[in-house]
Amino acid sequence: MAIQSTVALSSRDDLALAYTPGVARVSEAIAQDPSLTREYTWVRNTVAVVTDGSAVLGLGNIGPRAALPVMEGKAVLFKQFGGVDAVPICLDTQDTDEIVRTVTALAPSFGGINLEDISSPRCFEIERRLDEALPIPVFHDDQHGTAIVVLAALTNAATLLGRKLGDLRIVICGAGAAGVAVTRMLLAGGAVDVTVVDSRGVIHASRDDLNSEKRSLVGVTNPRGVTGGIADALRGADVLIGVSGGTIDESALAGMTPGGAIFALANPHPEVDPAVASRYASVVATGRSDYPNQINNVLAFPGVFRGALDAGARTITDAMKVAAATAIANVVADSMTAEAIVPSPLDPRVAPAVAAAVAEAAQSA
Amino acid sequence: MAIQSTVALSSRDDLALAYTPGVARVSEAIAQDPSLTREYTWVRNTVAVVTDGSAVLGLGNIGPRAALPVMEGKAVLFKQFGGVDAVPICLDTQDTDEIVRTVTALAPSFGGINLEDISSPRCFEIERRLDEALPIPVFHDDQHGTAIVVLAALTNAATLLGRKLGDLRIVICGAGAAGVAVTRMLLAGGAVDVTVVDSRGVIHASRDDLNSEKRSLVGVTNPRGVTGGIADALRGADVLIGVSGGTIDESALAGMTPGGAIFALANPHPEVDPAVASRYASVVATGRSDYPNQINNVLAFPGVFRGALDAGARTITDAMKVAAATAIANVVADSMTAEAIVPSPLDPRVAPAVAAAVAEAAQSA
Repeated sequence: MAIQSTVALSSRDDLALAYTPGVARVSEAIAQDPSLTREYTWVRNTVAVVTDGSAVLGLGNIGPRAALPVMEGKAVLFKQFGGVDAVPICLDTQDTDEIVRTVTALAPSFGGINLEDISSPRCFEIERRLDEALPIPVFHDDQHGTAIVVLAALTNAATLLGRKLGDLRIVICGAGAAGVAVTRMLLAGGAVDVTVVDSRGVIHASRDDLNSEKRSLVGVTNPRGVTGGIADALRGADVLIGVSGGTIDESALAGMTPGGAIFALANPHPEVDPAVASRYASVVATGRSDYPNQINNVLAFPGVFRGALDAGARTITDAMKVAAATAIANVVADSMTAEAIVPSPLDPRVAPAVAAAVAEAAQSA
Repeated sequence: MAIQSTVALSSRDDLALAYTPGVARVSEAIAQDPSLTREYTWVRNTVAVVTDGSAVLGLGNIGPRAALPVMEGKAVLFKQFGGVDAVPICLDTQDTDEIVRTVTALAPSFGGINLEDISSPRCFEIERRLDEALPIPVFHDDQHGTAIVVLAALTNAATLLGRKLGDLRIVICGAGAAGVAVTRMLLAGGAVDVTVVDSRGVIHASRDDLNSEKRSLVGVTNPRGVTGGIADALRGADVLIGVSGGTIDESALAGMTPGGAIFALANPHPEVDPAVASRYASVVATGRSDYPNQINNVLAFPGVFRGALDAGARTITDAMKVAAATAIANVVADSMTAEAIVPSPLDPRVAPAVAAAVAEAAQSA
């Protein structure tokens, strides 16, 4: 990864224009009208990829320096698929207030903030506070990138199964960053019967051990008032979405309604082995590149930010995320099979389609 | 300005290598041995150009957004002349503690910190605290970049005049960021008789209105115990260096020893008109590109950081700065005239020469 100059400096005149004294006129114009930064600087194409290194891939809390290669890889994907200039910012603090303060302070240099690999439940508060404080889009990819691609995949899976999203009984196993976001995204996309299970069992109103994020799911999930564990939740379910990092016993799967879908997204070890999953479901997806139906965030984030930046969006709404999911699903709607419910992560049609849909949703808000 | 990807992603294998799961091995290696970030990430070539927008060019306190085009221009120069990847970071705070905290927090993403256009005297404390806190070079260019180029120019001017730096009577007019740094640099480079004048007169031991930076100059400057104003300081002086932003009356210049040097560096309006200056001095320099002898920081900062990054330096010492000045002076030592005591800002020989000299000085420390 490198910085590339987009102007040529071959004469004193070039130098005088790009730097002093010529640049002073541009600065004066922005001082008069700050909205001109979009026109005269790189912010309209630039995103900070911010992490504190507290939950990096499956490696856990390995700190900001060890997180840097991951953020650089992410920046490369941003550029290749979205044409977005992304800068890795790895923070040497894991204090929530300090992270909010630091990102707020450096925000004038960027057109958007992509939060990455920040542990749950801190990630919820950090994203919410930054989104409120800043006039630019803030997006925690581990939550919303995953959630968008899951909604896209489940939309197409439902079509293949001859079902409607609103008619499916869906179980989410895991209530961390991804689990909570997937739940909200599916509800925003039209799902009705969603039940969430964490390591202590089904989330329901009588639990007194829920953090505020999990508690906020109580009113909107589990419409049939299920209690118990994962096996209880899966009895009669059509869809299982694993975002837990743990494993799910095969005996629990046996209670599912045959012919449904299992997305086992833990990486590198899916909650259910895909071979086992295919005994209980017609459509199987994982997070891995060596199995069919890889649920990969790269299908979402480059296009989401491209569209948000193009539209000058100040935030990323649920409508923009649903539009992104629909766009991803539509790319393969006419060609899909049970082994190809989402596009390949390298499909060059995806990011432009997502960007256009997100920008349109932003503008009609 | 843009981000450029330095890897090609054209297959799933490329993707798996540059991002998950391949990148996990790199992250694990760095988690074991943080010094490997230099080998496996872009930090060894990457500098943050940090400002709070409090003293931008001659425009004053125009804030972080209006400062962004200047920082982008600077990043372009870093790339073109030093091959350094520089990222503009414009901070939405002008609180000293907050700036130190923010830059400390984001430092793991960078191999060096170039402070820029931060007002005096805050800039001194901010640089000192960051230099102490961080294991990477911190360099306030308005101070040290200017100072290095002034030392280079005065070294060559002294040769032309047939004098030694240590024998010259030097007056510095201005005791802000640049004035203090030029004073220290000239002393480090071998000057002996340096007298500093601020808006209230000559700096000497009996003044009770000095901030701590100015006070620290008392013991090392003004060896003849001059008091009074600029005219008193200039009586019998060989060299006048203006870094004040104000103007100097011609009557004061009349007291200088004929055949010396005047550097009037305020931009865009030099303290002394070059035509007037040439009546009182044999060598005249300004900060402007449309007169001979432009004292331009771009002769210093790209090579200084290139050398510091290449050497893995943890700080930028006086010896490294003096080495940079000597390298700049040497580029034109054999060809110089009174109208060309420093290289052109576009001379491609400068940055590599500075980088090599700085790296050598860093390694022999």
